Amino acid sequence: MREHLRLSLSEIERLAFDALLSAGFSAAQAGAIADNVTAAERDGCTSHGLYRIPFYLGALANQRCDPQAVPELIVNERAVVHVDAGSGFCPLALRTGLPALTETARRHGIAALAIRRTYNIAALWPEVEQLAASGLVAFAFTGSNASVAPAGGTRPLYGTNPMAFGFPRDGPVPFVFDQASSACARGEIELRRRDGRRLEPGWAIDADGWPTEDPAAALDGAQLPFGGHKGAALALMVELLAGALIGELFSVESSERDVHGIGAPFGGEFLIAIDPGACAAPGQSAIHTARAEQLFERVLAQPGTRLPSARRHAARERHRADGVPVDAELVGRLRARAGSRSGIGKAT
Amino acid sequence: MREHLRLSLSEIERLAFDALLSAGFSAAQAGAIADNVTAAERDGCTSHGLYRIPFYLGALANQRCDPQAVPELIVNERAVVHVDAGSGFCPLALRTGLPALTETARRHGIAALAIRRTYNIAALWPEVEQLAASGLVAFAFTGSNASVAPAGGTRPLYGTNPMAFGFPRDGPVPFVFDQASSACARGEIELRRRDGRRLEPGWAIDADGWPTEDPAAALDGAQLPFGGHKGAALALMVELLAGALIGELFSVESSERDVHGIGAPFGGEFLIAIDPGACAAPGQSAIHTARAEQLFERVLAQPGTRLPSARRHAARERHRADGVPVDAELVGRLRARAGSRSGIGKAT
Repeated sequence: MREHLRLSLSEIERLAFDALLSAGFSAAQAGAIADNVTAAERDGCTSHGLYRIPFYLGALANQRCDPQAVPELIVNERAVVHVDAGSGFCPLALRTGLPALTETARRHGIAALAIRRTYNIAALWPEVEQLAASGLVAFAFTGSNASVAPAGGTRPLYGTNPMAFGFPRDGPVPFVFDQASSACARGEIELRRRDGRRLEPGWAIDADGWPTEDPAAALDGAQLPFGGHKGAALALMVELLAGALIGELFSVESSERDVHGIGAPFGGEFLIAIDPGACAAPGQSAIHTARAEQLFERVLAQPGTRLPSARRHAARERHRADGVPVDAELVGRLRARAGSRSGIGKAT
Repeated sequence: MREHLRLSLSEIERLAFDALLSAGFSAAQAGAIADNVTAAERDGCTSHGLYRIPFYLGALANQRCDPQAVPELIVNERAVVHVDAGSGFCPLALRTGLPALTETARRHGIAALAIRRTYNIAALWPEVEQLAASGLVAFAFTGSNASVAPAGGTRPLYGTNPMAFGFPRDGPVPFVFDQASSACARGEIELRRRDGRRLEPGWAIDADGWPTEDPAAALDGAQLPFGGHKGAALALMVELLAGALIGELFSVESSERDVHGIGAPFGGEFLIAIDPGACAAPGQSAIHTARAEQLFERVLAQPGTRLPSARRHAARERHRADGVPVDAELVGRLRARAGSRSGIGKAT
């Protein structure tokens, strides 16, 4: 059992921010990343929490990566907004693009955001949650590194390629899911290797194409899509949207470009936002949130069910009140990186 | 082994058209449906081919259903186009809406189409194929009847809820997939019951919630989503898009409204179309089709792989050249309905 420290959300955010700032990130880049990492810790998504900070720091070994990049927003009269992330990281590109996407979706009824030239190792649901919290229906798609075999194949080609979806609710938290098109998240395999735990059947194959439950063999082999060829089709769709459509790299090209094995995928993210007011029956007002609640009630009326993200939202309440248990060794390493800036964290 | 007749595509279209016309469908409704059914037979999708015609005819037992409905198109200055199908069938609503969706997507860069008040038992891929063939990236979503249990649940709530996606290619046929969020299509279970074949494991549960491979027990119980909770989340997304967002019925409400057990689901369809020209890097021309080919080549370079719809496209070539073997008993029934209009079909 690894030792854990219990940190408050503001301590987590400060630790992430300071570690990044000390490493040469601009305050804007560091602030956006720290916000994403803190949201992940708050919601119990350990593999996208502070665990990711060393990956952000490691990405600097790639000289093309710019930790001080200032993303450039390009808006025209049409409903597709563009952000050139300038070889910086995606959270700041999203901070730059989401307000324009929101405004454009309200004006046209539907809009898209194409983010290019970005390193993206962040959780994907925060952006659809933000869009849905502002009243929009939202999709987000992004590639990553080649790790998933195509349907019938045996070698990594697709990224884990998450697709996130958000729908407004009247309550405090919108409906959100964020699911990899792989059977499990890459970070989950990395965490299980670290913790000496086996994988579930159906998650991966080894370098020879045989099923494996050994995390190390899986990381040398290929992950499998969820649901067979249907999950693989979704992974391919994500490559087409976040790659071919917006003129960006495919996951496998990002991996090939990463000659030093740094691991931070480079490429694009594609988002769609829809204004429900434009989608209601003409002459009638939007009743989408009230209607959605009626459906959610019918889901939850069946014993054993829960809505997507329910576990995440329960963790959110708990962690806001009590703080988050974070791996002590990781906190120690980050604290050393952050230097004198962060003297936080008490043993649990 | 059931007896089959080999019909040409034009014979299939004529048989479907005449059977519908004789039953009181308008020529416009019958023509659009016959086109969809013929495309399904052409591509080897038996469960959406002539097999569907009796479902169309049966739907007329519902007095709310209008086989002569004239869909109404509503276009405004925003990028969401609306079609009120007037309680007619979806293929004609699509004929009415797709040109406006295409034009609106070209103008705004991205657009949506909300189809309401429609009976929809047609294959979903023809509309995304048409949009992609005209150069757009396209999504389509539609509910159906309650047949799929939510994640963790045991009773039908979601429809089989397909999601279709199309991406342009330079060749004659665009990239298209159309996949149910259920582990298998409803029609596949119906066909296996008819033919006395078992289901695959993981497709369904019986009325008591236990796994079953008996088609009849599955039809009394519930289908399962593909890929567990991830497929269920997609099914729920489809309900939200084609139901709550556009002010239409959920699959379970459509089933509850169908007090006579007629089976043709009533509700909505939601489509998104994207102009790749608006998504390319500003100042650069769109290279999405060339880039997509590079990815497809890498998929197909792995032994054992194929692209989605490859089997459908192979059937298309074969059936165009040689005609389609169609169940002889079904042809006989339809010919009787069509009366003197269709004296077609020679035994194989």
